[in-house]
Amino acid sequence: MRLADSFRSERFGAVRIHELQRVIELDSGALDDAFSAGSRVVPPEAIRAVESQMVIVVPCMNESRSVIEGVLSGIPHDCLIVLVSNSDQLPVNRYEIEAQTLEQFCRLAGRSAISVHQQDPGLAAAIKAAGMAELIGEDGLVRAGKGEAMLIGMALAAMTGRRHVGYVDADNYVPGAVHEYCKAYAAGLHLAESPYSMVRISWHSKPKLRDGRLFFSRRGRSSEITNEWLNRFLAEYSGFGTEVIATGNAGEHAMTLELGLKLRLAGGFAVEPYEYLDLFEQFGGILESASPDVMASSVPVLQIETRNPHFHDNKGEEHVQGMRMQALNVVYHSPVTLPAVRQAIVEFMVAQGALEVGQEPPRERVYPPVGSLDLELLYDGLDAEALTFRQFDGRASAGYPAAPPIERPGIPRPTV
Amino acid sequence: MRLADSFRSERFGAVRIHELQRVIELDSGALDDAFSAGSRVVPPEAIRAVESQMVIVVPCMNESRSVIEGVLSGIPHDCLIVLVSNSDQLPVNRYEIEAQTLEQFCRLAGRSAISVHQQDPGLAAAIKAAGMAELIGEDGLVRAGKGEAMLIGMALAAMTGRRHVGYVDADNYVPGAVHEYCKAYAAGLHLAESPYSMVRISWHSKPKLRDGRLFFSRRGRSSEITNEWLNRFLAEYSGFGTEVIATGNAGEHAMTLELGLKLRLAGGFAVEPYEYLDLFEQFGGILESASPDVMASSVPVLQIETRNPHFHDNKGEEHVQGMRMQALNVVYHSPVTLPAVRQAIVEFMVAQGALEVGQEPPRERVYPPVGSLDLELLYDGLDAEALTFRQFDGRASAGYPAAPPIERPGIPRPTV
Repeated sequence: MRLADSFRSERFGAVRIHELQRVIELDSGALDDAFSAGSRVVPPEAIRAVESQMVIVVPCMNESRSVIEGVLSGIPHDCLIVLVSNSDQLPVNRYEIEAQTLEQFCRLAGRSAISVHQQDPGLAAAIKAAGMAELIGEDGLVRAGKGEAMLIGMALAAMTGRRHVGYVDADNYVPGAVHEYCKAYAAGLHLAESPYSMVRISWHSKPKLRDGRLFFSRRGRSSEITNEWLNRFLAEYSGFGTEVIATGNAGEHAMTLELGLKLRLAGGFAVEPYEYLDLFEQFGGILESASPDVMASSVPVLQIETRNPHFHDNKGEEHVQGMRMQALNVVYHSPVTLPAVRQAIVEFMVAQGALEVGQEPPRERVYPPVGSLDLELLYDGLDAEALTFRQFDGRASAGYPAAPPIERPGIPRPTV
Repeated sequence: MRLADSFRSERFGAVRIHELQRVIELDSGALDDAFSAGSRVVPPEAIRAVESQMVIVVPCMNESRSVIEGVLSGIPHDCLIVLVSNSDQLPVNRYEIEAQTLEQFCRLAGRSAISVHQQDPGLAAAIKAAGMAELIGEDGLVRAGKGEAMLIGMALAAMTGRRHVGYVDADNYVPGAVHEYCKAYAAGLHLAESPYSMVRISWHSKPKLRDGRLFFSRRGRSSEITNEWLNRFLAEYSGFGTEVIATGNAGEHAMTLELGLKLRLAGGFAVEPYEYLDLFEQFGGILESASPDVMASSVPVLQIETRNPHFHDNKGEEHVQGMRMQALNVVYHSPVTLPAVRQAIVEFMVAQGALEVGQEPPRERVYPPVGSLDLELLYDGLDAEALTFRQFDGRASAGYPAAPPIERPGIPRPTV
């Protein structure tokens, strides 16, 4: 893969946010240098080295079988797949259909995967036993929400012993886009050269129906707002306006697990913008950091603009408004957000009709780091009680010795 | 890339048409065997070996700059790009914009390309000098039409000395789909294991606007008809109904140049279905073959169903009806089509209102094989007279010795 060079970055303590980099070529051949100024080539071996250490988590809710099949086909072979489903189990058990699709794919492609249903009582029990009762709702199950699914996915990723985790939404109609996201994760994590790095995707465009024809919109409806306020957050500190953050709502992103295990994830759709805030809180140098090792290193955030259009299911206006406000809530409530920005957020939300005068934005749920989980207890709970917990080992179907992605003796001790 | 195995094929003389094979994984990692039954893995080195011998021809007519950029970004680095444009040159010179886009891409990506405009008087003169006056219309220029653009592209491909040529339409909104097509060409040509092989793409689905929402149609409007009649052509010989041909109209296809240089291409949109008929005419064993070497070998046609949706500009109903009828015209007029099929075609066309009772379907133009061109004379003509003929050498911009894709001493002698 060939990326445009990133010449500029903004620092916020140990956090180094790189300007958006375009993908120039999806496949840059076997070259290991650039042959040209202004671009960086990541050769296939370097990409494969990252992929073979990468888990791709696919949060999934009620997608059709053919869309899921397409997404799976786009995930590079060397990545391990983790499906976290929150699909309906009644009247039709959609999770069973998803798990079958995954199993069939693994058998055909000779690869490995893990799946679990977010509402599985056994999963909730295992999470509780492993030490994160915060994730459990009043019904005794893991709370619904995208952030919660991502947290589960990260915990499973950590148990495999792999070093990277990436997220890909299940509602993507373009397998080639999924493929590009994963390649961009690997290329970015390779270029970032830090054990604490993150790669966030900004898609090239989003096709929308408008007046009976397709319009390729450059910016998502909630991304514009989220990015604007994250940039105001930075500008209020530096005194210089900035547009450096272009991926505040990036559902498609990846990180090293060494970083991921330290992050506190937010619930619902606050999860993606809150990642930025948690980086600022933990590694921004404003509050005291619990991780002097990270502070001594740096936390690069690479932002990559992919070539493919992001062509997915339209979840409607309500969904977008919800996402937008959840992003503002987390900026507002962060202890490192300066008062002027907090004040402006309240005014904006009132003007948008999202808040009554005199009200405070609601607080989003924020969970402890995944690194605080006892992974061995989590495994024991899943193994014993979670009926939807499945491990697929495609190589076993071809007569190779079975090697499930997670095995008890192989579970790494949390590093945090 | 991992493809489903093709277990069945139909023979027609030396032509061996393989049943449609699905793409299972876009990227199958570094594996060189399958780990599972029912699929074939083509490892990256094998794909790269084909790509480094492949020219990708992009016929282009009035596409927007950003769509072209996307298509270019999806073509694997090791492939050489040939752009054959028939875009408007007035009031705005769109060809100049295209050539600039191509040049900029080559500079950024350090790669090589060739471009030419189909209506360039110098091109027409060069083609005439090289021995194919049939391609020149009454206005003294190369005839407009997609088949004609493909023929020019194949001639340029032959001059580079590379061994394979593939075609990718310029109106594709999904760079990842272009990428998948090229990978499928390479995988297919590798698996075909014959110097005379062809790979044709059947896209997974085609998104269409219907009642304000997207519907993923499985079959194109003209493909259904074309495939049906090509299959009837075969069935009339074998006495067994068949659905083996699924790629009669495949704009996306590739072949070895050893095969390509022998093929007679048809003009306009008849070009793709006519490739099948010319294979049947030349290598079907019904008429005497001018190529006993090919007859002694075999001509595999691999058909690959890609994962990405084919998401392109909607050219309208008239365009589709035109394509459909051109396909029927070439089936009707082929000397190897049996009388019962010819009769049925006439009845069908009359019923469709495409033909009056008692009329005969019009004849499509069919050109001599590209292998009959004198490539050295063609080069001399292009070099001396074709003002739109450009060669881009991206490596030169980084200080490497200039190496244009076509050089006079390097031009291979036609093999036919």
